[in-house]
Amino acid sequence: MSVTAAKGFRAAGVVAGLKPSGSPDLALVVNDGPLDVAAGVFTTNRFTAAPVVWSRGVIAGEQGRRGAARAVVLNSGSANACTGTRGADDTADTAKHVAGLLGGIDSGDVLVCSTGVIGVPIDMPTLLEGAGIAAEALASSERAGHDAAAAIMTTDTVSKEDAVTVAGADGTWTIGGMIKGVGMLAPGMATMLCVLTTDASVEPSAAERSLSAAAGRTVNRINSDGCMSTNDTVLLLASGASGVAPGPEAFDAAVAEILARLGRRLVADAEGATHDIAITVSGAVSEAAAEAAARTVSTSNLLKCAVAGGDANWGRVLSQLGTVPEETCPFDPEKVDVTINGVTIFRHGGLGDSRDLVDMSPRETRIDIDLSAGDARATVWTNDLTHGYVTINGDYTT
Amino acid sequence: MSVTAAKGFRAAGVVAGLKPSGSPDLALVVNDGPLDVAAGVFTTNRFTAAPVVWSRGVIAGEQGRRGAARAVVLNSGSANACTGTRGADDTADTAKHVAGLLGGIDSGDVLVCSTGVIGVPIDMPTLLEGAGIAAEALASSERAGHDAAAAIMTTDTVSKEDAVTVAGADGTWTIGGMIKGVGMLAPGMATMLCVLTTDASVEPSAAERSLSAAAGRTVNRINSDGCMSTNDTVLLLASGASGVAPGPEAFDAAVAEILARLGRRLVADAEGATHDIAITVSGAVSEAAAEAAARTVSTSNLLKCAVAGGDANWGRVLSQLGTVPEETCPFDPEKVDVTINGVTIFRHGGLGDSRDLVDMSPRETRIDIDLSAGDARATVWTNDLTHGYVTINGDYTT
Repeated sequence: MSVTAAKGFRAAGVVAGLKPSGSPDLALVVNDGPLDVAAGVFTTNRFTAAPVVWSRGVIAGEQGRRGAARAVVLNSGSANACTGTRGADDTADTAKHVAGLLGGIDSGDVLVCSTGVIGVPIDMPTLLEGAGIAAEALASSERAGHDAAAAIMTTDTVSKEDAVTVAGADGTWTIGGMIKGVGMLAPGMATMLCVLTTDASVEPSAAERSLSAAAGRTVNRINSDGCMSTNDTVLLLASGASGVAPGPEAFDAAVAEILARLGRRLVADAEGATHDIAITVSGAVSEAAAEAAARTVSTSNLLKCAVAGGDANWGRVLSQLGTVPEETCPFDPEKVDVTINGVTIFRHGGLGDSRDLVDMSPRETRIDIDLSAGDARATVWTNDLTHGYVTINGDYTT
Repeated sequence: MSVTAAKGFRAAGVVAGLKPSGSPDLALVVNDGPLDVAAGVFTTNRFTAAPVVWSRGVIAGEQGRRGAARAVVLNSGSANACTGTRGADDTADTAKHVAGLLGGIDSGDVLVCSTGVIGVPIDMPTLLEGAGIAAEALASSERAGHDAAAAIMTTDTVSKEDAVTVAGADGTWTIGGMIKGVGMLAPGMATMLCVLTTDASVEPSAAERSLSAAAGRTVNRINSDGCMSTNDTVLLLASGASGVAPGPEAFDAAVAEILARLGRRLVADAEGATHDIAITVSGAVSEAAAEAAARTVSTSNLLKCAVAGGDANWGRVLSQLGTVPEETCPFDPEKVDVTINGVTIFRHGGLGDSRDLVDMSPRETRIDIDLSAGDARATVWTNDLTHGYVTINGDYTT
């Protein structure tokens, strides 16, 4: 049920010693082929961590072939962000070392991901020694996949992995993956790393297109606290080992499904959260307009506090919705409906059913906003804002 | 030191009975002239409360002369927002009633401001009766100004008023004012109402220009939690009673000074805050670019939690700064400096002085970001994010 669910992949997760806690902190995922297709989606933060620059370059073909890679090495404990040229050198050395350990590949075949404290150079001897231990431990077992998922955790309270198997007319193939992140930037930690693996036969261009589209509608619509990290990375590796070449629609759907599932787990593990909030804007003139409106509502601390307090506060939904520029998302305020957990408490710009009818106790809170301006919709996920969030992010010192 | 500091103004603040608490909830400010110049800056929220629509119309000349008004009636306890045509009728009736009480003016001379719970029609008999009491109590004393400032409070813990007297070559004139708001939207309450009064002789167009410019650089750069209310209003009334017509620069400077002072008090009274945070971006290519970058940094919940916890977390400054689009604010990440309370802990894209040198104990926290890309600068104020904020905004039920 993880990065080893698909045929053609081995993984490992070990204790390198980068984390003071002594928890697992180094993971390796290897694609044994026959294909070595790789695609990636990366943070757009302008302070980009060294491993993001490296891995983006590998997939862009700066180190060899475009859309190809044989392995991913991931560490927690240090983000290698804001570390200058030393950080870039360290990432390149990591890739070279792992290539040597695996044999028959070169550094341009190795993707690198890091997460953890920023602004501190990575402890390279420890990292490289850990990579050696991981290379020895590589296995295609479910257990090995689980070990890898555990090794990339930072403030995650649970490891997060899943897999989807598709039985099509041409045969059966699988896509699995692991993700780390707690729905928001941890204190000085990077948010989100995700590795997907599939044994489907796909072209690099198809893998890239599928991954971009799926990320745009899933993990990029999680907005726990509006903060974007320097290290966010989503990778997709394809081995082709199933011998099945699914049609583009089936492949797109499976990539979207696995990323949606993993993203949902990330939301559920958000720091201090007691409610997961799905904000769906429908009746918009376009999907982009719907997404912009939902994203704006998702940033309201007032709304997030209200949900934490069990208050179906439609006023905070509206006042935040009202800040979306008309050119971004046209609608008539007099035609807007707001439904919270199934109760339409604001209808056509005026009071609707009683807010007392709304049950705010479920962890999953659904806020549905109908703009009556078109047919497009989008959902953005966020969390409530709790004392736990303030404690975790205020009392921690990086 | 308030709306009665300038000559030509009377004010009152009384208990109408709109607030269940029995606290003062109705204020009246009257301009006795000789001039009746009025200017206003209003919320851009698309869910605009009825009194904002009315007052904007008065100043735009929809009810008579453009840029003119004789009185302002302000109530707390009810925002008269999301109340449909009934809300609009109630506002018009309020203006008409106050005009009748004052005599010799008509409803188009009366500005209306409301703050409080949204989505509930205003209790008009109570409001109108309170207006009668206020009209009886009108006085030009400092005490009367103070009463008015107290009557517009919602979750404010202190009333906020101030005045600036300018002794120029042509004589002495004064600008005073009152503001209400707690740096952020209170639960279901409107954020900010502000009335400035001056005895300077100014043209309506000059008053409008001065007020817009000053608001843009002061109260519109307060961003405690990114939430904008349906009722935000800043008004400027000029009586001309000093007989002094200051030059445009002197007048602009005084309006900016009084609004900056009042805005600073609003920041200091933010819900649950323990630190006021001034985020200054310098070295930007334009003031708009500097403001956009400072505003983006000001929205980081992670940074706000770090400041609450006494953590000089430059990583959270950078990761948030890195989300500003390059077309909005161009800079080279390798040239950025971050200084917190005078200690430059991040310099030219790398580590600077030790964060241990930073004293985070003062309530006023200064985060200075030098982009080294130009000569422009801007400051945006925010607050830290504390358990108190979560409690106030989560445990309250509107």
